Amino acid sequence: MENLKKNHAIPKATAKRIPLYFRYLKTLDQSGVKRIKSNEFSQMIQIPSATIRRDFSHFGELGRSGYGYDVPYLIQVFSNILNTEIEKRIALVGAGNLGKALINNNFRKNSNLNIVVAFDSDPELIGKTINDVKVEDIAKMSEMIKKESITTVIMTVPSSKAQQVIDEVVDAGVTAILNFAPKRLRVPHHVQVQYIDLTTELQTLIYYDENYNHPDLTTI
Amino acid sequence: MENLKKNHAIPKATAKRIPLYFRYLKTLDQSGVKRIKSNEFSQMIQIPSATIRRDFSHFGELGRSGYGYDVPYLIQVFSNILNTEIEKRIALVGAGNLGKALINNNFRKNSNLNIVVAFDSDPELIGKTINDVKVEDIAKMSEMIKKESITTVIMTVPSSKAQQVIDEVVDAGVTAILNFAPKRLRVPHHVQVQYIDLTTELQTLIYYDENYNHPDLTTI
Repeated sequence: MENLKKNHAIPKATAKRIPLYFRYLKTLDQSGVKRIKSNEFSQMIQIPSATIRRDFSHFGELGRSGYGYDVPYLIQVFSNILNTEIEKRIALVGAGNLGKALINNNFRKNSNLNIVVAFDSDPELIGKTINDVKVEDIAKMSEMIKKESITTVIMTVPSSKAQQVIDEVVDAGVTAILNFAPKRLRVPHHVQVQYIDLTTELQTLIYYDENYNHPDLTTI
Repeated sequence: MENLKKNHAIPKATAKRIPLYFRYLKTLDQSGVKRIKSNEFSQMIQIPSATIRRDFSHFGELGRSGYGYDVPYLIQVFSNILNTEIEKRIALVGAGNLGKALINNNFRKNSNLNIVVAFDSDPELIGKTINDVKVEDIAKMSEMIKKESITTVIMTVPSSKAQQVIDEVVDAGVTAILNFAPKRLRVPHHVQVQYIDLTTELQTLIYYDENYNHPDLTTI
């Protein structure tokens, strides 16, 4: 299965769906379902079955027509692709309400994803421990990230601080950043930034609700 | 411009980018920039200029080759599309850490988006006021949503409670739901659900970081 690791040809849209497929396949497996047809899987995860079949085709012959997909095998393939056997040690920057919510949840359904340390500049927070994660002084961030060889960071700092923080963590060796500040940031080419922009998501949702469900309401 | 409201032909991917375009155009306008070329805009928002031109083409002739786009005009068009002049009254269900973070932020850069009420079942929270938003007993949710004619809800409740809450708000007239529980929910056809799945975003980010930046590291 080693060849599956080199997935340079997988479209970004497919890569985005793999974690979702993986989660649902694990749920199926835990419920004793060992085989599933693409149209059943489609209904369950609300993704068109043509999309599922096209996505799965990137990983070779994973199913047979009329028989469906072998659930344990798919789990093995996706687990391998996502490297879920290897712990990902994550640093969180910004331990406000959103940061606290992320630490308290700490991706507990995915045991390999671990927020191991948090950083903040608030003296009230520094030294505190939240769900076994210690909040450290942001002044020590660069040094600790280097020492711990952390390459993934979640940022929940205000937009005004985001560029400064990102420059510092990138200098310390971070290459993957999940950022909750919507402002686009400058990073070197080898660094991946994923933006979670809640306002945009909400505006898109409302736009869809108004224009596709009740078109008449929007013309009042 | 009335005809722009009926955007049944706009692809979902384009609709998703409109709020982002809108935010950056407002920033440009506030900085005194009244005209921008697609390649400059592209660099600023990190979206390919071909995508921007294709997206904008859905809204008619918004720019001229070599001249660039008229910023105030685009703002007017997108504001109209997004209905930003009309207040959206939003209810939040689940006032834990994540809910509190959302109430405290309350989309303050978009004055038309307003969380006006929150619901929770925790007696410690009921009756409290966070950033001028009162936390009400979840037992009153259905009645209050109907009374206030609220159609948009943000849900930050545990996965195990999500279906029950969604059934109740949909019965009360809600048609747009931003949901932070990753589990797919059953809703009637006229209801839009947008899932914010932080674990999936993080897994996708790490997958990209490992496979596209440092492919050699993943084969150790």
